[in-house]
Amino acid sequence: MSEIEITERHRVFGGEVAFVRHTSVAVAGPMTFNIFVPDGEGPFPVLYWLSGLTCTANNFTEKAGAFRRAAARGLIIVVPDTSPRGAGVADDPAVDLGQGAGFYVDATQGPWKAHFQMETYVTHDLIAAVEANFPADPGRRGISGHSMGGHGALTLALNYAHLFRSVSAFSPIACPIRSPWGTKALTAYLGADHTVWERHSAATLIAEGTVKAFDDILVDQGRADPFIETHLMPQLLEQAAATSGQPLRLRYHDGFDHSYYFVQSFIDDHIDFHADRLTQPRTRPAHEAA
Amino acid sequence: MSEIEITERHRVFGGEVAFVRHTSVAVAGPMTFNIFVPDGEGPFPVLYWLSGLTCTANNFTEKAGAFRRAAARGLIIVVPDTSPRGAGVADDPAVDLGQGAGFYVDATQGPWKAHFQMETYVTHDLIAAVEANFPADPGRRGISGHSMGGHGALTLALNYAHLFRSVSAFSPIACPIRSPWGTKALTAYLGADHTVWERHSAATLIAEGTVKAFDDILVDQGRADPFIETHLMPQLLEQAAATSGQPLRLRYHDGFDHSYYFVQSFIDDHIDFHADRLTQPRTRPAHEAA
Repeated sequence: MSEIEITERHRVFGGEVAFVRHTSVAVAGPMTFNIFVPDGEGPFPVLYWLSGLTCTANNFTEKAGAFRRAAARGLIIVVPDTSPRGAGVADDPAVDLGQGAGFYVDATQGPWKAHFQMETYVTHDLIAAVEANFPADPGRRGISGHSMGGHGALTLALNYAHLFRSVSAFSPIACPIRSPWGTKALTAYLGADHTVWERHSAATLIAEGTVKAFDDILVDQGRADPFIETHLMPQLLEQAAATSGQPLRLRYHDGFDHSYYFVQSFIDDHIDFHADRLTQPRTRPAHEAA
Repeated sequence: MSEIEITERHRVFGGEVAFVRHTSVAVAGPMTFNIFVPDGEGPFPVLYWLSGLTCTANNFTEKAGAFRRAAARGLIIVVPDTSPRGAGVADDPAVDLGQGAGFYVDATQGPWKAHFQMETYVTHDLIAAVEANFPADPGRRGISGHSMGGHGALTLALNYAHLFRSVSAFSPIACPIRSPWGTKALTAYLGADHTVWERHSAATLIAEGTVKAFDDILVDQGRADPFIETHLMPQLLEQAAATSGQPLRLRYHDGFDHSYYFVQSFIDDHIDFHADRLTQPRTRPAHEAA
């Protein structure tokens, strides 16, 4: 199950990026991911990067400019695709549903449930494939992402706090249950019962969270992002964090939009954020006190 | 003639990248280029980047990771397209001829001569459009490029040494008159008379050059580049430089291939190379002694 095929590899900075194909039980078919591995023996801490609508693994790999700093910090970066793909996989002509738009949930509805199991894919099959085949330290995982992938990073980190020690996001869909992108996808994948949507809303999880699993969450948001008011709503993250007391560092950046030009401009800060937390011994959260 | 239309713009690091469309007299039609301009008043030194076969201006813009360092050094970067394009422009089904493969020469032959005037486009129309519309210092221009664009950077710098004060290249086609890519393109664009090809061969120009217009030329080459022996032949640059005494810093890099993963790994060195030379007062070359 954890067998992989490397379809392409390139030396870049002090490491190598590989394009990987493997079979996922969760999505019942082939998946692809890209992985940057720094030179050396490892084991290395790992940052999982979840991408946004329409992306494959290549958008981040080609456009984020992340490998210079990842090599310097000794960090593996893993970039999965945003959905299962192929002729036998359900799809929709819109960019915000179907292939390229998995939303990091396990679908229970209609034609989607056969393959669209991205929550289990990321939290189980992807991690298993990475840790079986690369010098990745199972005890030191972080997660980040952009837009739909920022939503994925926050919600998977909060729902699987035992798997991840650090979390950050760029321009996340903070509250999919109030965003047109989110409500469309959640209705299609999970059905009309809103109560099952709530664990897929970062703002809801943070507001309700008595866990405070993470000492700090870093979120960057461009003020010139055309989706900020309709789809992203970062102010709901701030309100949620204030409600529960979850530490949140939400930074707004004048002039920056929703593109990878924004991501590349601040990716070094996120790599440092994760590397700082993943190279230190774990601080025991209050709720785990002996 | 120097009117431009900005079709897209993005804030990135401490500056902005703009996508530009304008009309070129030389190519008798529309051309596109991308430009990164750092924050501030200027005038700024300018690095012209020439791309390789199949590229548009977007390959470098998206994949080279150059803007972080360019912003830090206060350098404008201009990235033209690799040829004229469009329905009325001659083309060829191969990737090494026609649209996307202008080779930075002025065609004199057949269907190509109507639009394929990339030598004059870069050295005249592009520079004019940039300097009329952006805070670019006309006295401080450098040029670099990759593969076919490395050839273009070296040959245009050597043939137009009065226009450029610094030159470097990644993986250049060092001697197109001995490279299958080069001989095919030069035959199509310039005809079978090899004597007119010679001024489009960097190795030939450097070997013959009594000018030594540049104090130093920086060239980076990956040793795992699949085109190194057949098409690029960097050893001919070394031999030519030894023949004429032209200072040349040719660096080989184990494991790196021909992709932008290689370019991004060393682009900071090239930006520093140009910025160091373009922010200093010009050293008068020996042949210009009073």
